Amino acid sequence: MNVADLSPAQARERFRAGERVPTAGWCRGWTQANLIAVPRRLRYELLLFAHLNPQACPVLDVGEPGAWSTPLFPGDLRTDLPGYRLYRDGEPVADLGDVVERWRDDLVPFLIGCSFTFERALLAAGVPVRHLELGTNVPMYVTDVACEAAGSLSGPLVVSMRPVPDELVKTAIEVSGQYPMVHGAPVHVGDPAGIGIRDLARPDFGDAVEVREGEVPLFWACGVTPQAAVMASGVEYAIGHLPGHMAILDARDDDYRVPS
Amino acid sequence: MNVADLSPAQARERFRAGERVPTAGWCRGWTQANLIAVPRRLRYELLLFAHLNPQACPVLDVGEPGAWSTPLFPGDLRTDLPGYRLYRDGEPVADLGDVVERWRDDLVPFLIGCSFTFERALLAAGVPVRHLELGTNVPMYVTDVACEAAGSLSGPLVVSMRPVPDELVKTAIEVSGQYPMVHGAPVHVGDPAGIGIRDLARPDFGDAVEVREGEVPLFWACGVTPQAAVMASGVEYAIGHLPGHMAILDARDDDYRVPS
Repeated sequence: MNVADLSPAQARERFRAGERVPTAGWCRGWTQANLIAVPRRLRYELLLFAHLNPQACPVLDVGEPGAWSTPLFPGDLRTDLPGYRLYRDGEPVADLGDVVERWRDDLVPFLIGCSFTFERALLAAGVPVRHLELGTNVPMYVTDVACEAAGSLSGPLVVSMRPVPDELVKTAIEVSGQYPMVHGAPVHVGDPAGIGIRDLARPDFGDAVEVREGEVPLFWACGVTPQAAVMASGVEYAIGHLPGHMAILDARDDDYRVPS
Repeated sequence: MNVADLSPAQARERFRAGERVPTAGWCRGWTQANLIAVPRRLRYELLLFAHLNPQACPVLDVGEPGAWSTPLFPGDLRTDLPGYRLYRDGEPVADLGDVVERWRDDLVPFLIGCSFTFERALLAAGVPVRHLELGTNVPMYVTDVACEAAGSLSGPLVVSMRPVPDELVKTAIEVSGQYPMVHGAPVHVGDPAGIGIRDLARPDFGDAVEVREGEVPLFWACGVTPQAAVMASGVEYAIGHLPGHMAILDARDDDYRVPS
């Protein structure tokens, strides 16, 4: 069975069984989400950070302290993602296949919208998506654009990049703009240096893709931004998804479409 | 000087000096906001409640614990509103002209959008606003529509009502819909019983206005909703504005307009 045809429950079961792959293209029609779990003490600041930076950090769901499932993610947040990144004092200290032993009682999980959610709509509108064609992870970059700070939490905006043919740029902007809760329209179009990206060939997360003659790089706000804030702010303990290795929710892409 | 022509700083000075009036029609072109200040312990739940009920509780600004000003409200939140309501254990225990003596060190103030902000746009589009014509407070009602709960915080949706001539209902919906951060389009049009309002002549807050032949009552989500949640949830201590007696911000109505 093609991974695009799996249900969220089937995908979660495969990740729980140990499969470690980026989720771009998985579970066509279902919503993917970023995970960031922080100590209860920081949950207000994290939620405020998300409120102040809504394009990068659209909060789709929140769990109770210590909970490992939420209404939209009825699986086990400790095992049912294909990859995790553990932080101590702002440093990424381990990439893991599960975090059962690391999930503290006071961790509050937030699920943040992901731009994979509108990729099906891009394809339907005739906009090619290179990393889907290649079967790789989307390239992501740390920019020099500062997020609005919330108390002790601050950090740079992270973006994902998709090369789009000149003549389809307008379409890509319009189509993704119909999904405001999963990052919406691009935050930047064109010259990577304009947002402080030095080399497209060296993404901070994910895999590089080629930008060909006649294509423009489009940059979308990315839900890895809270992990950049965890790093920049020296948060004592946090668990995120491994970038590109998302939580797949029991929610439909179309649930987040706002017709324009 | 007409109160519509005052600057926010001038209005705040008059309220600080003791004037106690509803603020509908004051400071034309400037944004008005609801106040809800809760103990630090509850700030996460309040922010989550706002996130889960964005049409009723759009958060325009937040203060630090104990702070009595915010970036958008450079005055003194304890004195510069024309009226306050103090709650203990969910009960409104006093209506006050200032709360200098009641402002605890752990109170976190939230400023929530107010529909007064789009009334100038309604007038400009030819939609009459009866309570402005009468110089009274807007009528507000507690509905039977439950808000999404956030931990210990739950409660009913509160709405404001404006009667609109049949032929202008569409215009009123469109114009207010351009201001999503100050409640946006109505949540209900027509029969008050549809949202559990028994008698339009007896608002829960503010002053009644007549709905005349050929007019339809339009109901907008109202920023008094957090105060209804404080009451329904038995919050131990909270300070709100007296309904209709708003905080006037150093922000322009137009800052919250999203052209459609």
